[in-house]
Amino acid sequence: MANSKSSPALKDELDIVIPTIRNLDFLEMWRPFFQPYHLIIVQDGDPSKIINVPEGFDYELYNRNDINKILGPKASCISFKDSACRCFGYMVSKKKYIFTIDDDCFVAKDPTGKEINALEQHIKNLLSPSTPFFFNTLYDPYREGADFVRGYPFSLREGAPTAVSHGLWLNIPDYDAPTQLVKPRERNTRYVDAVMTIPKGTLFPMCGMNLAFDRELIGPAMYFGLMGDGQPIGRYDDMWAGWCTKVICDHLGLGIKTGLPYIWHSKASNPFVNLKKEYKGIYWQEELIPFFQSATLSKDANTVQKCYLELSKQVKAKLGKVDDYFNKLADAMVTWIEAWDELNPSTGASTGVPNGTAK
Amino acid sequence: MANSKSSPALKDELDIVIPTIRNLDFLEMWRPFFQPYHLIIVQDGDPSKIINVPEGFDYELYNRNDINKILGPKASCISFKDSACRCFGYMVSKKKYIFTIDDDCFVAKDPTGKEINALEQHIKNLLSPSTPFFFNTLYDPYREGADFVRGYPFSLREGAPTAVSHGLWLNIPDYDAPTQLVKPRERNTRYVDAVMTIPKGTLFPMCGMNLAFDRELIGPAMYFGLMGDGQPIGRYDDMWAGWCTKVICDHLGLGIKTGLPYIWHSKASNPFVNLKKEYKGIYWQEELIPFFQSATLSKDANTVQKCYLELSKQVKAKLGKVDDYFNKLADAMVTWIEAWDELNPSTGASTGVPNGTAK
Repeated sequence: MANSKSSPALKDELDIVIPTIRNLDFLEMWRPFFQPYHLIIVQDGDPSKIINVPEGFDYELYNRNDINKILGPKASCISFKDSACRCFGYMVSKKKYIFTIDDDCFVAKDPTGKEINALEQHIKNLLSPSTPFFFNTLYDPYREGADFVRGYPFSLREGAPTAVSHGLWLNIPDYDAPTQLVKPRERNTRYVDAVMTIPKGTLFPMCGMNLAFDRELIGPAMYFGLMGDGQPIGRYDDMWAGWCTKVICDHLGLGIKTGLPYIWHSKASNPFVNLKKEYKGIYWQEELIPFFQSATLSKDANTVQKCYLELSKQVKAKLGKVDDYFNKLADAMVTWIEAWDELNPSTGASTGVPNGTAK
Repeated sequence: MANSKSSPALKDELDIVIPTIRNLDFLEMWRPFFQPYHLIIVQDGDPSKIINVPEGFDYELYNRNDINKILGPKASCISFKDSACRCFGYMVSKKKYIFTIDDDCFVAKDPTGKEINALEQHIKNLLSPSTPFFFNTLYDPYREGADFVRGYPFSLREGAPTAVSHGLWLNIPDYDAPTQLVKPRERNTRYVDAVMTIPKGTLFPMCGMNLAFDRELIGPAMYFGLMGDGQPIGRYDDMWAGWCTKVICDHLGLGIKTGLPYIWHSKASNPFVNLKKEYKGIYWQEELIPFFQSATLSKDANTVQKCYLELSKQVKAKLGKVDDYFNKLADAMVTWIEAWDELNPSTGASTGVPNGTAK
């Protein structure tokens, strides 16, 4: 029961979003850490299947029928037969913070053998500032025992609000299909005791397996795209969300942290199946990265929604010629924002973060 | 004698540069790791003082008289009564690689209690590529047990040549005077088992205490400026070098790594003395950072020397108005390059790295 406290941090301000197609036995291991929180379970695949949730958890569950009923025609923007469907959970949540985790992720242990309360670390990451404008060589300066080093400008030491906390994985690393095929036995055994901010202007591969974010700051950018059933690619849902999110965070002066916490990723997905899902993504990606690296948003884009709609236009204008898929995706991005604002009327008019650091 | 091998890596291609004002007893602890290498000792302060070097080390020693004799009037660019004088050692070296370390730095231990061969780790860092164009969430993808994660563009997986390896410090962290004053008892006890590339476009505070670099790739940018005797600031020598180096590495498509190896930094310098040295630097820095963040170099600047001379012109044009000190510094930057080329005639005409990734 390590780290389980009488009043866990952000108990009433955070939802745990879990996409799944199976019984959620994995929650047993997380019980000491997750039970105080509310779960949003997004059931993928056959909606008639019954998903068992271990007793004692407080949850709501949405299957495809529910999604269709709630969103109507706008449900087209939510992927089917792909864990990208999880972003529906972000949209229906009414909380300020989201933690999302895959159902093949278990509790990891730190080098002393202590079980890691991943959620608690994500909350620490989200509640302390980020440092996107200058690199601190001793990593997160807000952690106990650390600080800004000599030469770090004093004017930047207040940092920026943290919008995203990206956690890592022990055991099975998050490799693409080609790397899985080449290194089938590689396991991640290196526990790196660090949290750091991804600098402004730098893209990173955001993995959705173990991820937390501030819905109020960045929620509408966390769209996991069109993947799976009827779509030409898969396994790029979280990457897409990450690239859009990073561009928007950079524009709005928000920070993204990566590093701790680790979860234990139990099983590698099938690399042959993955290769089929990924293969278009692997070469489209070579066009996507320069696109996102050079994307700029206007001064008028002072809310996440406005940023995201600007980005959707650029996707259509610049990536539509790579493949017609991106025209569909750009339309879905717009639908996503419409649906988000419908379900979250109060945040639709949000003015976001002051735009002082916008490019 | 852990890690001491019959033929240490780069034995004939690397010099160890040590600035000092005292006997070099600290070398005893480094003997198993440093003895095979050649040392360049730059004696600061009173040249009549005799510096004892433990027996068995192969070294050359330069005091102020030697510097004046070798450089003539150009010796004005080398600082006096400040460890910035170390860069003279970079200039007289004939080797491809430099490792520089302070004489209050001792051998650290990793979490298993094993003594860390800092030099060996720096060499590993320098001989494997960097990844400045995209962030890898599992840190250095070239390390054993690690790789590029899903979503990392394949076209970027060959990386960039590594020009600089920046090591860290256990025990006394490299804090500025105000932080030293506020946290006199803080010690760095966190061993972070990671090496990572500072992304392109991001500045960092480069500390000269435990630093290695490739002279052929970046040597002429490693000028530690005008500090100490007769100058209005100190303790910004390595910072200045780091900012110039980072801008030039970004322009030339070279990488800078930070993280491992750790050394054991034994004693904090006097924070009151440091405050006096730093205080102008602390507020000038607020102008320096935006200057370096926005500095761009021309396509014609395809060698380190050409880049450095362009930068010196920009220093004069844009920072000269902050304080006349920067006019002097800009002139010294030019003198430094002239002296470098005089002592290193073969590299003066170097065409550097192909400029494909220049901004």
